[in-house]
Amino acid sequence: MTQLKEARKGRITDEIKEVARQEFINPKQLRKLIAKGRVVLPRNVNHAFSPIGIGKFLRTKVNANIGSSPNSHKIDDELKKLEICTKYKADTVMDLSTGGDIDKIRRAILKNSSIPVGTVPIYQAMVEKESIEDVTEDDILNAIEKHIRDGVDFITVHSGLTKNAIPLVEKRLMGAVSRGGSFLVRWMKHNDKENPLYDNFKRILELAGEYDVTLSLGDGLRPGAIKDSTDKAQLHELKVLGKLAKNAWKNKVQAMIEGPGHIPLHEIEKNMKLQQKYCHKAPFYVLGPLVTDVAPGYDHITSAIGGAIASWHGADFLCYVTAAEHLRLPNADEVREGIIAARIAAHAGDIAKGIKKAAEWDNELSKNRKNFDWKNQFELAMDPEKAERMRKESCLNNEEYCTMCGKFCSMRK
Amino acid sequence: MTQLKEARKGRITDEIKEVARQEFINPKQLRKLIAKGRVVLPRNVNHAFSPIGIGKFLRTKVNANIGSSPNSHKIDDELKKLEICTKYKADTVMDLSTGGDIDKIRRAILKNSSIPVGTVPIYQAMVEKESIEDVTEDDILNAIEKHIRDGVDFITVHSGLTKNAIPLVEKRLMGAVSRGGSFLVRWMKHNDKENPLYDNFKRILELAGEYDVTLSLGDGLRPGAIKDSTDKAQLHELKVLGKLAKNAWKNKVQAMIEGPGHIPLHEIEKNMKLQQKYCHKAPFYVLGPLVTDVAPGYDHITSAIGGAIASWHGADFLCYVTAAEHLRLPNADEVREGIIAARIAAHAGDIAKGIKKAAEWDNELSKNRKNFDWKNQFELAMDPEKAERMRKESCLNNEEYCTMCGKFCSMRK
Repeated sequence: MTQLKEARKGRITDEIKEVARQEFINPKQLRKLIAKGRVVLPRNVNHAFSPIGIGKFLRTKVNANIGSSPNSHKIDDELKKLEICTKYKADTVMDLSTGGDIDKIRRAILKNSSIPVGTVPIYQAMVEKESIEDVTEDDILNAIEKHIRDGVDFITVHSGLTKNAIPLVEKRLMGAVSRGGSFLVRWMKHNDKENPLYDNFKRILELAGEYDVTLSLGDGLRPGAIKDSTDKAQLHELKVLGKLAKNAWKNKVQAMIEGPGHIPLHEIEKNMKLQQKYCHKAPFYVLGPLVTDVAPGYDHITSAIGGAIASWHGADFLCYVTAAEHLRLPNADEVREGIIAARIAAHAGDIAKGIKKAAEWDNELSKNRKNFDWKNQFELAMDPEKAERMRKESCLNNEEYCTMCGKFCSMRK
Repeated sequence: MTQLKEARKGRITDEIKEVARQEFINPKQLRKLIAKGRVVLPRNVNHAFSPIGIGKFLRTKVNANIGSSPNSHKIDDELKKLEICTKYKADTVMDLSTGGDIDKIRRAILKNSSIPVGTVPIYQAMVEKESIEDVTEDDILNAIEKHIRDGVDFITVHSGLTKNAIPLVEKRLMGAVSRGGSFLVRWMKHNDKENPLYDNFKRILELAGEYDVTLSLGDGLRPGAIKDSTDKAQLHELKVLGKLAKNAWKNKVQAMIEGPGHIPLHEIEKNMKLQQKYCHKAPFYVLGPLVTDVAPGYDHITSAIGGAIASWHGADFLCYVTAAEHLRLPNADEVREGIIAARIAAHAGDIAKGIKKAAEWDNELSKNRKNFDWKNQFELAMDPEKAERMRKESCLNNEEYCTMCGKFCSMRK
């Protein structure tokens, strides 16, 4: 059973009812959107939590990446990161662990998570071998199978990066900057074989279908510099991803498409339109986009700018980018700020694209701001704790107005 | 003598030559832009520093607000803030002091600033009286005259907020949220008189013309909630500002227009187009725009999103907004992050609108990123210190790659 199969049969499942309720949308309309592949409900049949929807006419969702590295791989640390993600209302998390006991960490996260969990199984296949060249097709398929059977709700598979795209990559300023993409390019060149995630797509579909795992069709060739944006390599892969999405739907497997990356402001709308065209309106899951390359240390901001415009023009799901991007793994503060920055982008996009009740939130907060109801204003704020703490640091704490304008506050009666 | 007067006479002044050099633009083209009022060179004849230009075909500029408050008014603190602004490359500062010896602070800032300094003279007129109702027309004009004679390079005058706009303000969710605007609304109602900044515009032009002070025609009615965005009150004032700009040009006084405020994503382009139409392509100086009301504590991000789109569609000058907006005065860290966020927005907009050599910066940084030349990458970064510090915190400091991907770095040879 998959949600897509049920929706195709005309059945309104409990999950569809629940998501329709969250999103203020008619369950019949939602069923149709799922049947057409325009909305996914990522939830493994072995993973229990309140379902969420990602796709057209729904609130734009935010993913936060967590996971161990070779230098830091305590399970408790990862569970703490998961707590931060839930506290600051990321809609999903991805466990990108590459260090320590990866299976144990993934299972602990799955057990403790109340939101959908995604993974990139090839990462595990890569790190468990001495060198990338030693990874076999079986290693990759086994990792996918293990993650799916463990209860992961969505997995990234870079199945669209085919061998004939490699010459296009070599023309780039930055080449392939995604970990999965650069691994596959190297693997294909070394083995002189087609991408195993493309060649074995049928097997991947069987596994995903069995557990209702949503495939997140990864963009191994997302541009890593604005110079490489919207180039032939990127668009070649996007077209293949569109074909694979159709193939997934034929097999009643839920699918979404991953997207860029570094994209200048004026190319974002075009990118969203091309994805809709090539990928038949499958949900679009973007990383950023980062609208400039020049701000390492502030890439949560470069991404929030791009993410807002992407969401407005059709992206359904934003992967957060933290201030540490390009520099190191993020710390707890950076994870929090990264989630909030992505949520701001998602919400700004939702207001612009007219998602139901999105702007009501703003109006409600502004009414409380106008009335100096600080308590309610904080409760409604995207990050209530930070807003309250900052206000408390002000010495006019007992006054209605704040230190910005003092008694010249424009809102005083 | 004003730059506008000289440009109209066909003279290419030293200032025009210098700005043309900075901006990779032909001096003749720049002279024409200044003559038409599409570019301003804000510099008081009594204030010596290397001139900058603000307007069409030039790099989008960023302003940072500093200034004392009744609770904190040490001159040294303000000079330290000025240092931060210069260090992080704000293009201008505005001294919005409302506490302590305001004259002394302004003069100290002017003496020490290597970038244009702006002020809002009515703030001083307001704070030096017991109550707003006691402020006289003379108080306001005297404050303007004093600031101009002291050497201020640009002043905000909210001359476009006329009495007939008051009923439009009263329909709003948030009313008039700018300090100047709310003061003037109260003053006009109390005195049952027209806005003195409108009534005495001729006198203001005489003073500004004498010292070549650029008038920043203030938007007292900028929307303070997305609900109030692009409403009749805002557009009424904008039309008046356009007429005043024409009047300024007739008198050879340089002028720019101030703009919003809280504006949802999908209304920003329209706002930029309306300003160009109503204000005859006078340079546009915007505060934000903030694309949502719900993120107190993160308004540098909500503003960077709006500022980037504004810059792309025609804004020439962005006023920074810090994370402390709506909560308290910003601290040093928040000032720094606010400047960088606004610079990111300005630069992203510059790439999108095709400002000369804007994207070259990105390409240069990305080349160094590709080559693992961390030193050059940091030097080119928008905030070199932060980028370098974050990387140093990584335990892989001596390795080429960083803790994000470790040995699985996609860029390793």
